[in-house]
Amino acid sequence: MSATLGKLIGLGTGPGNPELLTLKAARYLAEADVVAYFAKRGAKGNARTIVDTHIRPGVIELPMIYPVTTEIHKDHTDYINPINNFYEDIARQVEDHLRAGHTVVVLSEGDPLFYGSYMHLHVRLAHRFPTEVVPGVTAMSGCWSATGVPIVQGDDILSILPGTLSEDVLARRLMDTDAAVIMKVGRNLPKIRRALAAAGKLERAIYVERGTMANMAITPLADKADDVAPYFSIVLVPGWAAKPGENLAAALQMAEGLA
Amino acid sequence: MSATLGKLIGLGTGPGNPELLTLKAARYLAEADVVAYFAKRGAKGNARTIVDTHIRPGVIELPMIYPVTTEIHKDHTDYINPINNFYEDIARQVEDHLRAGHTVVVLSEGDPLFYGSYMHLHVRLAHRFPTEVVPGVTAMSGCWSATGVPIVQGDDILSILPGTLSEDVLARRLMDTDAAVIMKVGRNLPKIRRALAAAGKLERAIYVERGTMANMAITPLADKADDVAPYFSIVLVPGWAAKPGENLAAALQMAEGLA
Repeated sequence: MSATLGKLIGLGTGPGNPELLTLKAARYLAEADVVAYFAKRGAKGNARTIVDTHIRPGVIELPMIYPVTTEIHKDHTDYINPINNFYEDIARQVEDHLRAGHTVVVLSEGDPLFYGSYMHLHVRLAHRFPTEVVPGVTAMSGCWSATGVPIVQGDDILSILPGTLSEDVLARRLMDTDAAVIMKVGRNLPKIRRALAAAGKLERAIYVERGTMANMAITPLADKADDVAPYFSIVLVPGWAAKPGENLAAALQMAEGLA
Repeated sequence: MSATLGKLIGLGTGPGNPELLTLKAARYLAEADVVAYFAKRGAKGNARTIVDTHIRPGVIELPMIYPVTTEIHKDHTDYINPINNFYEDIARQVEDHLRAGHTVVVLSEGDPLFYGSYMHLHVRLAHRFPTEVVPGVTAMSGCWSATGVPIVQGDDILSILPGTLSEDVLARRLMDTDAAVIMKVGRNLPKIRRALAAAGKLERAIYVERGTMANMAITPLADKADDVAPYFSIVLVPGWAAKPGENLAAALQMAEGLA
């Protein structure tokens, strides 16, 4: 066991396109002793795929395979107990590497502290080991950049809403905001569509699947069938287009902010 | 004049640390004919400073200098007319380069379509010229990563609120959200503090100045004096810490999302 503790690095891989990795992320991957990543059983995982060309030969790979499937309801103890044990177990595995002096990079799709799995390790380890979080380009930034639609400007309020919320909550939130991003679409798509219609914003909503990746799909949500949507697909409700008259006031605020 | 139109590239430089540039941004900077950037008169501007080491020798630099100061009220026509003329003028300058076949990179601190100046060029040019937006790490991601505080998890709602909103609106929004990011702090700091206190969330708020830069400052907002705050400083109100009992449900959702 080394006298010097290793460093824990929560590393954002960006939204999917490998070139949207940051320079710092690329450097840390080149220096890592251990690269850990979450995945489903039998799959490599998006985060690990994104960094393929940056994996140093000889690096220790630590796949962290989720022990449960989506067939069990998420509030059931048959689901909760295994997942809690899983987090405890992988935290111990990462801790062993840190105590051995290894630098451990934990991959996180998008940005690590923004709805990311990495934070389950972070809250267990960051207070006891040297730790750094490398921010990444979020999936939502990747999606609105791909569509080329300005999402917010000036005094716009942006609400980021998990699609897992109830239809009533979604509709109320969508009504009471300038712009919105709806995350975690997947099987929630029909509910999200109804909530957008109730809020009078369905016509403005844009559906983005696998944003920034080679097989990306962008379509007005109104034209998208209620068939299978990937969990990580996103719905954008741009704010700025709705208020063109306020462009100038927005511009003035930005002028004020320039260094 | 070339027969082939040049390409317009809105390029996110990330939050401040030059290593938080993406690989794609670095490549496009190396290939650019023209690098355009917003700045105040007499200043270089943050975005241009961030990419210093990536400016190719011989590249054409196009500083876009705001014609107005913050001394005039932003709703006054002495302010609005010059700024509108300014956007029209720089759009024409960029258009001339694009018609000459030049690739024009427009720098945007953070992410171009997220409260960024770039979108004033985008809405004037993107429908007429080949255009690409390269997303960047946002200032808010840089800030919450620097503090190491998980910002949102699971079903958390994140509200992004410009500090320019009225105190009443800010307080109501802060009360009715799990997590919040308050942008554009600057001279709005005393108002933001009062709104957070009214919402019962002042104790949880974290103030971040020049996030990810060498001279970054992080402090609980409650301990920060109401003195000068830079316009681009940010206040974070983390959501997750408030609901530790829901960590497991959140984890299960993430397990569902893994590819």
